Amino acid sequence: MTDRSPGPHSPWLLPDSVEELLPPAAAALEHLRQSSLERCARWGYELVMPPVIEYLEALLSGVAHDLDLQTFKLTDQMSGRMMGVRADITPQAARIDAHQLRREGPVRLCYSGTVLRTRAEGAEGSRNPLQMGAELYGHGGIESDVEVIGLMAEILSAAGIEPLHVDLGHVGIFRGLCSAAGLEGDAEARLWDALQRKSTADIEALLGEFDVAPADHRRLSALAGLSGGAEVLTAATQALAGAGDPVDAALEALTRTAEALAAARPDMTLHFDLGELRGYRYHTGIVFAAYTPGVSGELARGGRYDDIGAVFGRGRPATGFSADLKALRRAAATTTDNPPGGGAIAAPWSADEALRRRVAALREAGETVIWALPGHPGAAAGQGCNRQLVQAAGGDWQIETIEPAENE
Amino acid sequence: MTDRSPGPHSPWLLPDSVEELLPPAAAALEHLRQSSLERCARWGYELVMPPVIEYLEALLSGVAHDLDLQTFKLTDQMSGRMMGVRADITPQAARIDAHQLRREGPVRLCYSGTVLRTRAEGAEGSRNPLQMGAELYGHGGIESDVEVIGLMAEILSAAGIEPLHVDLGHVGIFRGLCSAAGLEGDAEARLWDALQRKSTADIEALLGEFDVAPADHRRLSALAGLSGGAEVLTAATQALAGAGDPVDAALEALTRTAEALAAARPDMTLHFDLGELRGYRYHTGIVFAAYTPGVSGELARGGRYDDIGAVFGRGRPATGFSADLKALRRAAATTTDNPPGGGAIAAPWSADEALRRRVAALREAGETVIWALPGHPGAAAGQGCNRQLVQAAGGDWQIETIEPAENE
Repeated sequence: MTDRSPGPHSPWLLPDSVEELLPPAAAALEHLRQSSLERCARWGYELVMPPVIEYLEALLSGVAHDLDLQTFKLTDQMSGRMMGVRADITPQAARIDAHQLRREGPVRLCYSGTVLRTRAEGAEGSRNPLQMGAELYGHGGIESDVEVIGLMAEILSAAGIEPLHVDLGHVGIFRGLCSAAGLEGDAEARLWDALQRKSTADIEALLGEFDVAPADHRRLSALAGLSGGAEVLTAATQALAGAGDPVDAALEALTRTAEALAAARPDMTLHFDLGELRGYRYHTGIVFAAYTPGVSGELARGGRYDDIGAVFGRGRPATGFSADLKALRRAAATTTDNPPGGGAIAAPWSADEALRRRVAALREAGETVIWALPGHPGAAAGQGCNRQLVQAAGGDWQIETIEPAENE
Repeated sequence: MTDRSPGPHSPWLLPDSVEELLPPAAAALEHLRQSSLERCARWGYELVMPPVIEYLEALLSGVAHDLDLQTFKLTDQMSGRMMGVRADITPQAARIDAHQLRREGPVRLCYSGTVLRTRAEGAEGSRNPLQMGAELYGHGGIESDVEVIGLMAEILSAAGIEPLHVDLGHVGIFRGLCSAAGLEGDAEARLWDALQRKSTADIEALLGEFDVAPADHRRLSALAGLSGGAEVLTAATQALAGAGDPVDAALEALTRTAEALAAARPDMTLHFDLGELRGYRYHTGIVFAAYTPGVSGELARGGRYDDIGAVFGRGRPATGFSADLKALRRAAATTTDNPPGGGAIAAPWSADEALRRRVAALREAGETVIWALPGHPGAAAGQGCNRQLVQAAGGDWQIETIEPAENE
């Protein structure tokens, strides 16, 4: 490979953390996109295509307000109002369920599209991910959480991402413990922050500062250590006993979800972390993230976010997941080989009617046929052609193998 | 249909000329997108995915400078430089050919992605079209123009857009006539403007003002009337005789292109307009646009633009077309009916292992299977299910037809 990187002053350099895909990576990503959406369709998820830009107040409504810093702002020259480029499609899908569709009963939606972010998350983060996701509205039971995690697992497995590790948590446990301890607002937020950093010293200091009662203190202290396999659920039942109904209910929902997932996807390794609460403000119940060994960072994430539609006039239960298909493709490329293409057929440029019919028929049958343009006799082989159409003595067009040139 | 349009003050109203697609329109558009890209692949066009944002100077380089007013501007918080949201993918594809791929010989690229425009073109114009296009670089002969027009016609026909009318022109005719008459710069631009308006009075006044020699005057005057079927080419040969080699060569290229297209796509109606020069500054040779009766506006357009890559360090012959897939879908919906779906299968939510295997197998076979979530027993029928999985006496899961409810 020649080094084609332009100099630091090249005007054609792309902005940092903005990627483009060239052949054949673009075709591999497109294949992943199509097969992922096809799987969603077979699970009953209907495709929606919200716009890349919306008025800012619609884009950042309610819980989506956290996306403000990540959202590119634009002035609408037609209205003078501020618009934003979406940084996440999930709130758009919720708006469609609540405001556009307004159906009774469960609604399953899926989407795939570009989102933009003002800053990349982490060193390998992208500012133009190809987000793909699926959301299930109108059902509050663990069955819908199990369904979306199952769909996520199927899409990741089909992409060649194996083995699959899924982290499970439930924000109701931390929320319930804080509520029982009388912590709210700023106190809850500071404790949450210490918990994310798994800083035991900070957690203890804060619980002391807030003068939390001994039993509540003991339970909140235990949270940071409740991380591991299925044994964590048993340990939590003991460590968090007496915390009250909301915590008991959250733990029960987490346990039932884990049992159903273990039955449905025995190939998937489940990991529990009761103190890990990504997207805490956004979510209201089960939260999850998918990983695979050897690939840093989560490959897909999601959870329950029952309140999101309220700002659009209709609060409904909701659960779902999303992933960056570009990241999935990169992860898949490290764990599986791309299947080699079948090779194309070169056709000489000719006005011959029989040849044109033959080329059309071959393309209909799924073959790639490339016209060999006048002046470029040998170019077809360079474009991946391993066969060519040649006119036989009787006038028929036949497919012949192109012998690889020597010394190439 | 219930009127779901929000009031004028609804914050959830989308900006003017910005659309989103709901079910089932989104799935129809996705199907069109996939089948169009699949056709490109079978013609040997390789997919590229340039980013939605780039530095402004890269996005508006060279001929793309005309896109300036149409381009949304953003500040890159990571570099402080100005970025733009692409208003056209064609210049990005040219950058990829010239700067990223740098291959010898013909290169065929295709793409599909969202572009944004600050203002809509016309009353029905969109500010967020889903642009799809194909470009052929590295070959200057009419064979490549014929190829891209043929691919465009196949994609439009496959989308259900029939009958197909294609307007053909060649910017070399007007350019050659101006050059022979000694007109350039502002004079050429003013004459071009009058020609687009087909204002005979303005054309005559300008030719008088510019003091154009009688023979050149006669030929430039004739241009506005050279519009119609294949007879226009014969008339042009006579009316433009003596204009010099560049005009003769352009007319010859147009005639040969028309002959090759008539042979390859006899179903296509060709129309010639030697004074119609859309994208005049951008293009350098054959220009074309596709229409269908009953649909206002062009459905696809393109032409030769040999100089576009020069600004990226490598001028190469180039020809191609692009279309808004959303507009194609709307046009197709007016000329053909959408095929009815096969209907989905409802499955009761159950931990039964045999049921889960059966559901997975049905989905693998291409069926849509929707879990009937607890608490919503009748919801499956509302989600398009016409069959359901029912456990027989022996434990097997069988597919039964759901009888349509009466009085519904």
